Amino acid sequence: MIIRDLEFQLIRVPNERGYAGDRLVLVRLLFDADLEGWGEAALPWRITEPGPRRDFLLPILAGRNVFDIAELLELEPLYPRALKAAVETACWDALGRAAGQPVARLMGGVYRQRIPCSLRLRSEAPEDLAAETRRAIEAGHTSLVVAGSGYGENDVRRLKTVRAVAGPHASLRFDAAGLLDLPSAVRLARELEAFESILMIDPLRRAGWDLYYQLQRQIDISIAACRQITGPADVFAAARAAAVDHVIIDLARVGGILRARDCVTVAEAANLGCSLSCDLSVGFQSAAALQLASALPALTAGHDLPSPDAVNASAVRGLKMMDGMFEVPLGPGLGIEVDREEIDGLAVSRDVDDLFPQ
Amino acid sequence: MIIRDLEFQLIRVPNERGYAGDRLVLVRLLFDADLEGWGEAALPWRITEPGPRRDFLLPILAGRNVFDIAELLELEPLYPRALKAAVETACWDALGRAAGQPVARLMGGVYRQRIPCSLRLRSEAPEDLAAETRRAIEAGHTSLVVAGSGYGENDVRRLKTVRAVAGPHASLRFDAAGLLDLPSAVRLARELEAFESILMIDPLRRAGWDLYYQLQRQIDISIAACRQITGPADVFAAARAAAVDHVIIDLARVGGILRARDCVTVAEAANLGCSLSCDLSVGFQSAAALQLASALPALTAGHDLPSPDAVNASAVRGLKMMDGMFEVPLGPGLGIEVDREEIDGLAVSRDVDDLFPQ
Repeated sequence: MIIRDLEFQLIRVPNERGYAGDRLVLVRLLFDADLEGWGEAALPWRITEPGPRRDFLLPILAGRNVFDIAELLELEPLYPRALKAAVETACWDALGRAAGQPVARLMGGVYRQRIPCSLRLRSEAPEDLAAETRRAIEAGHTSLVVAGSGYGENDVRRLKTVRAVAGPHASLRFDAAGLLDLPSAVRLARELEAFESILMIDPLRRAGWDLYYQLQRQIDISIAACRQITGPADVFAAARAAAVDHVIIDLARVGGILRARDCVTVAEAANLGCSLSCDLSVGFQSAAALQLASALPALTAGHDLPSPDAVNASAVRGLKMMDGMFEVPLGPGLGIEVDREEIDGLAVSRDVDDLFPQ
Repeated sequence: MIIRDLEFQLIRVPNERGYAGDRLVLVRLLFDADLEGWGEAALPWRITEPGPRRDFLLPILAGRNVFDIAELLELEPLYPRALKAAVETACWDALGRAAGQPVARLMGGVYRQRIPCSLRLRSEAPEDLAAETRRAIEAGHTSLVVAGSGYGENDVRRLKTVRAVAGPHASLRFDAAGLLDLPSAVRLARELEAFESILMIDPLRRAGWDLYYQLQRQIDISIAACRQITGPADVFAAARAAAVDHVIIDLARVGGILRARDCVTVAEAANLGCSLSCDLSVGFQSAAALQLASALPALTAGHDLPSPDAVNASAVRGLKMMDGMFEVPLGPGLGIEVDREEIDGLAVSRDVDDLFPQ
């Protein structure tokens, strides 16, 4: 299977609140025999970039065998990692379609068909947050992620709201977003010890694992690292330093499905908790994470993936959630179907046409 | 692709010296559409065992999808790991044949086509060892493995013979076979410091990694672990304890291609040297190791695999060695072809017929 053509499309990601600020680059790879594969990346490209970037990359990719992914992954022009992840995802999608199998089956098999998820709450105002929490619990979610603001008191208040509405059995994750220094992180963590079953994600500003180890020694809740995990070597370093209890692997941040799998392998070998995450997705990245979570027995924890409502359900079909669990899409490739017209309707160029009418 | 049938065959492995004491179990899996896959395991089965074992395992394997390898690998009846590795190898072989691709392409791609190897010298007597070394060097080998006897003086003498014939640039590996206690290992290692470019494999009797760490602190040569590596967690533990410089992954010992790959991933993340090994093979295990070595960029060191002359070249075709490098067999699956008649000729039952003639 030889790569013949490459297509980039810049789209805006719609969401529940009609806020369309987030942009995604869609990647479509074309092969002989009318096969195609899709991927996506959250990249800060401007509207003028997809064309020239495609013209630059196509001669580098065209003619390559899609099976030779290890070689593809070493191509310097595919940096940054998010772009590499998108192209790699498109390759796996195409390979799966060619084999008539879901990607999970190329990764070791469909080990599980339902994938537990940790739902990220998006609301700002307390009453909205309470309502969103209530909806999540009613929909069957048992694990919720609350994003931190960097202001300890505010965050603790938000967590109290969520805990009160969600009840004592929901597992909470507090994403501190790497906004704290060591003393503030210690203070905040001690307050969070009152919450049962809570995981603090990325408490510290970018810093060495020794600082995480110092934090751990002083507090009594579990700590996860996500933003500092850019590959298997980071997982090893974190484990070796006994710095965290859990690592969260973001496919775009580590550079794709294979590298994410390598990270999981190291985490499992080191007896660290491990889960996947994806920040922004119209469906391809989420589906890639689900395929991987389906194939790797070690991935038992809930994953932090955008809910199918958050992504655009009409442009990309096949992602279903029930009782807080994603169903693994078992169609060929990533298992999801693309509605070209709907996708084209999301193209950013529309906005520009409106701004600069002919 | 559904498993339909399973065949075990007990063969004796011929070798250069006509010594046929080593036995292998060949595994053949049959699928719909006339597809098959082969694997092998060095297991101490008696001649009466293959039949009943097949009758026991077939109902457990039949009907399973060969893509669901992760699930297959958790089957308790497939223990010990060598048997699991054989069945898994047969699955990958079949998957590759179905896809029309070498297994390397299912593992990330054909990253390299020639695989450096470290040739294991088999001779006992000094003059034989010198002659064998000379042949190896003339054939282009640059890395040689000398097996240890447990008697330091004897081993040093053998190594001196090999070094003298092979010249100063050959890289030597001394496989101490886990026969030494800490003081003897230290003494021996200090003598080996005079040899440039030497790696000591498995110096210590089964023991904790802390003992290896103590050994390392006292000596100045590199140490590798093989026999204690039974999975990715062992690689992590060895790396965490800073116990060795290198790990050698035996596919049969860790339980197959996927687990071996996981071990390599952990070694790479931990910045440990890493290579593959295979003790005894008629070709399937060696080919599996070559496919993996072809797909994983991290595997740059030489591997300790039986040379194609050592295995039976007429029963299993496709393994070629040139200048100390194996060529990766690029046919579908493991890339090697089986001559059923020749294989049947190796069946152990012949010996028994001779022993107990009708």
